[in-house]
Amino acid sequence: MTELAVLLLDVAPAATEEPADGWASTVRTVAPDATVLRVTDLAATRGDGVFETLGVIAGHPQQVEAHLARFAHSAAMLDLDEPHLGQWRAAIAEAAALLPVDRQGGLKLVLSRGVEGLGVGTGWITASVADGDFAERETGLRVVTLERGYDSGIARRAPWLLAGAKTLSYAVNMAAQREAMRRGADDAVFVSSDGYVLEAPTSTVILRFGDRIVTPRTDIGILPGTSQLSVFAFAQARGLATEEALVPVPDLVAADGVWLVSSVRLAAPVVAVDGEPIPHDVEFTRELNEALLARQV
Amino acid sequence: MTELAVLLLDVAPAATEEPADGWASTVRTVAPDATVLRVTDLAATRGDGVFETLGVIAGHPQQVEAHLARFAHSAAMLDLDEPHLGQWRAAIAEAAALLPVDRQGGLKLVLSRGVEGLGVGTGWITASVADGDFAERETGLRVVTLERGYDSGIARRAPWLLAGAKTLSYAVNMAAQREAMRRGADDAVFVSSDGYVLEAPTSTVILRFGDRIVTPRTDIGILPGTSQLSVFAFAQARGLATEEALVPVPDLVAADGVWLVSSVRLAAPVVAVDGEPIPHDVEFTRELNEALLARQV
Repeated sequence: MTELAVLLLDVAPAATEEPADGWASTVRTVAPDATVLRVTDLAATRGDGVFETLGVIAGHPQQVEAHLARFAHSAAMLDLDEPHLGQWRAAIAEAAALLPVDRQGGLKLVLSRGVEGLGVGTGWITASVADGDFAERETGLRVVTLERGYDSGIARRAPWLLAGAKTLSYAVNMAAQREAMRRGADDAVFVSSDGYVLEAPTSTVILRFGDRIVTPRTDIGILPGTSQLSVFAFAQARGLATEEALVPVPDLVAADGVWLVSSVRLAAPVVAVDGEPIPHDVEFTRELNEALLARQV
Repeated sequence: MTELAVLLLDVAPAATEEPADGWASTVRTVAPDATVLRVTDLAATRGDGVFETLGVIAGHPQQVEAHLARFAHSAAMLDLDEPHLGQWRAAIAEAAALLPVDRQGGLKLVLSRGVEGLGVGTGWITASVADGDFAERETGLRVVTLERGYDSGIARRAPWLLAGAKTLSYAVNMAAQREAMRRGADDAVFVSSDGYVLEAPTSTVILRFGDRIVTPRTDIGILPGTSQLSVFAFAQARGLATEEALVPVPDLVAADGVWLVSSVRLAAPVVAVDGEPIPHDVEFTRELNEALLARQV
């Protein structure tokens, strides 16, 4: 991704009325290489904040409401002040308008707890264009399963572990992807200590079993997928059943197809799990990605 | 803590020779409220970096070599470029010289993976003076035990989970401290899913059993304490035995004393665990903190 601009928000409390001169007056656009953060921002010292990455297709930011809902949910899990979704919605529109309509783009929304002691959050949106050709949508991904260390009851039992919040504390997710590369794979799939499929470090797992499309249940401490919503809509339109379920790890190789879906890479088919080849329906994947790329919202 | 200054390092590769005009030429001092980071720095977007907090007493930074060794170890666990300890050592001396000698101070060393795509780390040191009176060294802390979600074998089995690295991804540590407050306590003690005492979110656990001073073994996925080294030295000078051990959770209430030790707060005695009062040797704690405050290095 190449960053085109950064929009800095004067983060408004959730109850704020839209200013008379519009939300745009609370947003300032700067160059992506501008130095705008203090080193004492808790984003930089504690990974203490939340984020979302939205895909932008032909100028249209995708699944805005699902992303905003997840953003607010993550913020609540971290006891951050509730973000004003009207302000963020307006800033998203402003940021998307900066992107070329003939390229895939992405918006990264970030809300941190702010500079230690100031008591006000720091918010920004980074607008980027995708550099890659997304060949993996055709060639597929080899994945390895990596233990996440937690059992599937962790989110219900220990909310302070923030399982299911999309936080800025992503060092483990990044380390897991490096471990996958080290093992000769392209990406990782996290699994629970009691044997269930969780999620990938930066994407959601989707499986196909005959006429059934399945994604892991989110109450086991994982993020609700946003692109996954579009995948389910695509599947339902084709008459397939869709389901959130507990997915035992062996299902990754028993399934008729597995995909990692995310906002910018979209649906990347998995072609091998821990070195074992798995089926890959090229045509289904192509049609799925065409549908995802044809979305207006 | 009130920040006095930030020292920005032009991070040097580990093999670099000291420049002819000295390491000082690679360090720039700015005001603590200067905006110096890009929003695309991986410190701010991924918590992807490592840190250390050193205590400074009467102008002397404490346990510098132990902190630098842990800093380098954390960096290696994250596959960061090896920090040049000579450069950091020089910057520590420069930062410590900015602090008043009549107040307790702290230095925070941070090394992030840097701006995404640039391939060079971002490094800085924040120099601060302590605001508080550290009354908790006398009054003690009420702690609650909180599950960390991992069993005690996690670090050996799953290094990508970075257990035992001091990373910038501290959202969970901060959330655990908020959970402790929510339960009417002052701090938390993490415990493993198989029943062992780990560490506190920002400090090391020390226990006393008669003439024996014990701290949890670090191979169970926790940080090697730096202040703990000084506590052990104090104990040994008094003829007490010192030991790293597996500490079952019930030992927290069975012990003759429990302390949380860290670089700035120093030794804070624990007075209650999950609501149950535990013994607190006021005199021993006072002498321990006097010894810690009398350190030259």
